[in-house]
Amino acid sequence: MAKNFKGIAASNGVAIAKAYLLVDPDLSFTKTTITDVTAEQARVDDALKAASADVEIIKRKAEKNLGADEAQVFEAHLMVLSDPEMSGAFKQKIADDKVNAEEAVKEVTDMYISMFEAMTDNAYMQERAADIRDVTKRILSHLLQVTLPNPALIDEEVVLVSKDLTPSDTAQLDRQFVKGILTDLGGRTAHASIMARTLEIPAVVGSDVATQEVTDGVTVIVDGLTGDVIVDPDADTLATYQQKAADYSAQRAEWALLKDQQSVSADGKTFVVGANIGSPKDMAAVLENGSEGVGLYRTEFLYMESDHLPTEDEQFEAYKAVVEKMAGKPVTVRTMDIGGDKHLSYWKLPDEENPFLGYRAIRISLDQTEIFRTQLRALLRASAYGNLWIMFPMIATLAEFRAAKKLYLEERTKLENDGVAMGEVKLGIMIEIPAAAVLADKFAKELDFFSIGTNDLIGYTMAADRGNDKVAYLYQPYNPSILRLINNVIEAAHKEGKFVAMCGEMAGDPVAVPVLMGMGLDEFSMSAPSVLQTRSLMKKLNTADMKLLAEKALDAETNDEVIALVEAATK
Amino acid sequence: MAKNFKGIAASNGVAIAKAYLLVDPDLSFTKTTITDVTAEQARVDDALKAASADVEIIKRKAEKNLGADEAQVFEAHLMVLSDPEMSGAFKQKIADDKVNAEEAVKEVTDMYISMFEAMTDNAYMQERAADIRDVTKRILSHLLQVTLPNPALIDEEVVLVSKDLTPSDTAQLDRQFVKGILTDLGGRTAHASIMARTLEIPAVVGSDVATQEVTDGVTVIVDGLTGDVIVDPDADTLATYQQKAADYSAQRAEWALLKDQQSVSADGKTFVVGANIGSPKDMAAVLENGSEGVGLYRTEFLYMESDHLPTEDEQFEAYKAVVEKMAGKPVTVRTMDIGGDKHLSYWKLPDEENPFLGYRAIRISLDQTEIFRTQLRALLRASAYGNLWIMFPMIATLAEFRAAKKLYLEERTKLENDGVAMGEVKLGIMIEIPAAAVLADKFAKELDFFSIGTNDLIGYTMAADRGNDKVAYLYQPYNPSILRLINNVIEAAHKEGKFVAMCGEMAGDPVAVPVLMGMGLDEFSMSAPSVLQTRSLMKKLNTADMKLLAEKALDAETNDEVIALVEAATK
Repeated sequence: MAKNFKGIAASNGVAIAKAYLLVDPDLSFTKTTITDVTAEQARVDDALKAASADVEIIKRKAEKNLGADEAQVFEAHLMVLSDPEMSGAFKQKIADDKVNAEEAVKEVTDMYISMFEAMTDNAYMQERAADIRDVTKRILSHLLQVTLPNPALIDEEVVLVSKDLTPSDTAQLDRQFVKGILTDLGGRTAHASIMARTLEIPAVVGSDVATQEVTDGVTVIVDGLTGDVIVDPDADTLATYQQKAADYSAQRAEWALLKDQQSVSADGKTFVVGANIGSPKDMAAVLENGSEGVGLYRTEFLYMESDHLPTEDEQFEAYKAVVEKMAGKPVTVRTMDIGGDKHLSYWKLPDEENPFLGYRAIRISLDQTEIFRTQLRALLRASAYGNLWIMFPMIATLAEFRAAKKLYLEERTKLENDGVAMGEVKLGIMIEIPAAAVLADKFAKELDFFSIGTNDLIGYTMAADRGNDKVAYLYQPYNPSILRLINNVIEAAHKEGKFVAMCGEMAGDPVAVPVLMGMGLDEFSMSAPSVLQTRSLMKKLNTADMKLLAEKALDAETNDEVIALVEAATK
Repeated sequence: MAKNFKGIAASNGVAIAKAYLLVDPDLSFTKTTITDVTAEQARVDDALKAASADVEIIKRKAEKNLGADEAQVFEAHLMVLSDPEMSGAFKQKIADDKVNAEEAVKEVTDMYISMFEAMTDNAYMQERAADIRDVTKRILSHLLQVTLPNPALIDEEVVLVSKDLTPSDTAQLDRQFVKGILTDLGGRTAHASIMARTLEIPAVVGSDVATQEVTDGVTVIVDGLTGDVIVDPDADTLATYQQKAADYSAQRAEWALLKDQQSVSADGKTFVVGANIGSPKDMAAVLENGSEGVGLYRTEFLYMESDHLPTEDEQFEAYKAVVEKMAGKPVTVRTMDIGGDKHLSYWKLPDEENPFLGYRAIRISLDQTEIFRTQLRALLRASAYGNLWIMFPMIATLAEFRAAKKLYLEERTKLENDGVAMGEVKLGIMIEIPAAAVLADKFAKELDFFSIGTNDLIGYTMAADRGNDKVAYLYQPYNPSILRLINNVIEAAHKEGKFVAMCGEMAGDPVAVPVLMGMGLDEFSMSAPSVLQTRSLMKKLNTADMKLLAEKALDAETNDEVIALVEAATK
């Protein structure tokens, strides 16, 4: 019988497919005494063989989706599964203790795991313990004949249902088969949601109940436009949503026609609609969606995906690849923003009570200047190959901007003296700390552009960590206090003839875009799949009307009141 | 030979006395084989006796300074020291294993500690483990004949030198003997600094090197006015600082004359100078210093110092005691601000990645409304006994204020229907979240007063945790962005004829006071010992000049520039 519930609409589109539950199954068992030793040993052999077959498939998928390096871990799993010492120990245990295969496998692997884990100073041994733990789960699943779900094993169209999705889960997703995503946890800005939008998979997150209400194999409708979820729909409902899915596809096709057009309002004012990226790999989506610039290149992924501090040349290649691909369109590169919730495996930052209010981004760069200078040199060298802008994250004071600019100018002079080719580079800051938003008039005199990072700006202005469910209700993008700070930045910049971009989630949010147009924001940078939809929305709106809307929103009292004002002005 | 170094001036005045090092001594020893069992057993008896004598003294001091309840822990220590089973085990170990007394004590107590600690679900046993650990340190100190320092044992005038001071250390301080405080760690707003100011003990904190540079017993000068520290001064230096200490005493005597006067500027504008308190115990200092109000009553201490949620009657008595003592002068009570770095032993709050951006203060009160209603009822009942104002902490949105006000009105109506006597109560909010500061004009229409909590407001506006040394440089009270937010609040309030107080550290800061007078702040609330100094400063300043100063400060670029402007305008 049909069941409905609601979650947070996290990635647009409508998915209709069978549910695939990505939930750890129950692998508990009872220890029994056996008599037929040979039969029990044969069960071990069968389970090992089946487990190896699984891992082979997962490994091939990982090689294809993630590359040979990332697939290494599965090679290690295969070695454990074919280790004669390990299988010998299982069989010996069965023969000696007359226990069932499950118990033998558990006891032997527990022994290995605790032995390896005891070597706490040896990272290699710690990894072996993790490998054995993974492999044990797989062997037990075959002995117990329960399915161990794995996104890599999916070979038909499904809606993936899970508590949450980790980065490694999403890395294994195959767009061909995964038609929708449905989770218990997370919000619009959670990792799973950002990935879903990047992969253009409809998603509803934060439903609380998905893994309880949905059984494996049942048909599920996931409406990523409204957050509605229907489990086991009747024929009428199914038909309605099939039509909705078709309509959405048609709309996407219409948006696609805007790919090579300018972003322009109904009354002819032009805007820049750009895309945010984390690595050169993201450039395909940027170009496919007709982005007019890269408004945010998050360079911290270069540092996070490496096992060492990236060298100047490694960085140069990454930056050059992006500016070249953009062929003269502006690429705004944000210098390293590690710290907070972003960590490096090879460089331990101090533990902090409140990492979001701690040692991160430009605060690290101005303290560890050699690392920062290396990045600046790589950026300056790449600037010869296109239109490169540099911005500093987490600037709170003018003194910080001046210190960063001084280092930039020193490196520029050194490279000039060495005869290195460089382009003109615009210099700016992220506006994500309230202090900088309030003092924007002073900053505007000393830099070329601002880029408003709304995710952090909202968090600090409301004093609420958006990752904390207990205070998620305070993460209010349309709260008039946030709008006033944004407006203050735009007015201050324009008074000095400077450019203002926005690169937070808000820049691609259909409720925020009309208000931001009214304020005169110059560039809207967002996840690439939202670019065409935003361009389409802009075409329908008149800036004079939006200016009136913005004035009303700035004088409103609450987040909800602003939503109502936007609805009234854009319907 | 004289040595100088500098720390942070944390509590005014000049102290000159012998250093008392409050540093854990080295209690390591070598395990040896002994032959004379009886002699070694006698060493144990002597050490136990000496340790008991120490604890008796500490216990009496604690009873006197903290009350019988807090001294209970030392009673437990005495029981451990006189436990025949424990001393028997020490002696048995010496006889059986032929080991020295130190080794016997260590082995036996380690065994007890690990046994008790293993009972992880039993809080009582966990406390016993802590008791034995404390007592063991003391026994070993006597066996090894090293001094185990304890603030309660001080019986001559000293400068206390330590890495840091914990709340339990400071609770044992005797103002009669502790003339100065000098620490390696901490800033002006650290617990030790606030305590030092409350106790009016000169203090220099955050010196980094104090415990390395100062040896026990050497003469030390601690200049709490400048942050200078001189170790083992020559005769000339000593004379200079003795004069400075005398001058400061004379100045304090002069300030004392202002006790019963109004706070008024040179040109006759009156201000309210109030004091901040944490419990009715603080009222003596409030009255001694001629405070014109209690600008902040931090009620969370009622919750933190209890072992249960304080009942309505317990709260009523505490609030009544304070409003009665103020005899009609206003008492602004802040509702419970737990969470963040303030925890309750009997109510576990969720662990959070960024507690300062999490579930705290009004966010808890609006979620756990029964606890909040109990506090509101206690406050309303106490309002009959004086001039009581209520303010809500950590308000970010108008919706939150409206929800809190609704609960307040509901409880008020219920009490009215029950015929309970109540006074007129003014209702306001703390301004400590940037969102509320930006939207102050809207808030001003719906409440009676604001109180600006600068400690948190600066932290959120600069996105810097003031407790984190790595970003302490960003805790800038005079940054023009902070001043603009404060000015915005004052202007918005006055436009609606509402009252604005400030109750953060900044309100008693001689650099900030002139600027705040220029902005027209109505009430300055601070630690009681700063009240008279602030009143004295106000008498010297002309508000028209300060208005010009404030205008310049609001148009400045950096924190340092504002400091220079204040110096130029007030010299």
